[in-house]
Amino acid sequence: MKKVMWMIVLGASFGLQAQVLKPESQIKLRQSAYTLMNYNFASLDNMAQEKKPYNKDEAVRNADFVAMLATVPKGFFGDGSDHGHTRAKPEIWKNRADFDAKMDKMATETAKLPQVARTGDFAALKKQVGDAGSACKACHDDYRFKEFPDAK
Amino acid sequence: MKKVMWMIVLGASFGLQAQVLKPESQIKLRQSAYTLMNYNFASLDNMAQEKKPYNKDEAVRNADFVAMLATVPKGFFGDGSDHGHTRAKPEIWKNRADFDAKMDKMATETAKLPQVARTGDFAALKKQVGDAGSACKACHDDYRFKEFPDAK
Repeated sequence: MKKVMWMIVLGASFGLQAQVLKPESQIKLRQSAYTLMNYNFASLDNMAQEKKPYNKDEAVRNADFVAMLATVPKGFFGDGSDHGHTRAKPEIWKNRADFDAKMDKMATETAKLPQVARTGDFAALKKQVGDAGSACKACHDDYRFKEFPDAK
Repeated sequence: MKKVMWMIVLGASFGLQAQVLKPESQIKLRQSAYTLMNYNFASLDNMAQEKKPYNKDEAVRNADFVAMLATVPKGFFGDGSDHGHTRAKPEIWKNRADFDAKMDKMATETAKLPQVARTGDFAALKKQVGDAGSACKACHDDYRFKEFPDAK
């Protein structure tokens, strides 16, 4: 019983620690996820648009990466992470419910990619890549600067 | 037949493009993988060392991330990516076989984490986190600068 109580207290304390992860660390983590998502999604998108040859194994690997990484960024837009080397617009912190809904939509659409990629159905993959891409774009249009505002 | 030939040619061309991915892009991709690996591995390691409460679901998620991300960096240490904002030591490009072997060992050890985490066997997880950590460290000791050489 004592151990359980200790774990609850420690759990609460670590929950707090996660909440107070430094803004620059949050920015770094979300940008890392986007960098790898972008790389893997571009590969899928190029296959879907027949700009590069379709390869099922590569598509599955890309899809697994995108689906997993898509779950990362939402947790790292905490208070204070609107400043620094980031393209995140201040609107994120003003329209949080809309931003979160768009992030959830992106995660939902990308989560379908691994299963679709495994069927080897190219037409279905093409459609799902399109749906996932639209979900990504919805957020970019509203909540991402085209350039880094702190760039020279 | 014509389409097949076209795809082979395009495939070769894209293979080439991947090889000539800009050094700064390679650096960004491998650093992104390390950033997310480090975050997820730290969580596992803190659980293993009982610095934070063990949570099976979190351990599985962390393990999946680490195992998947561990496969990324090796492909992004191409020619020219020894310069720039990187902690990679020049020894990587001099002792490539040893570096690759250490990278493979890291990928092999981290690849065991998802299955071990799913058993819910804490002692087994603790051991595998230790083995994976040692494999990471082996590379860091020999091939990573402690600080960014280009830092002021």
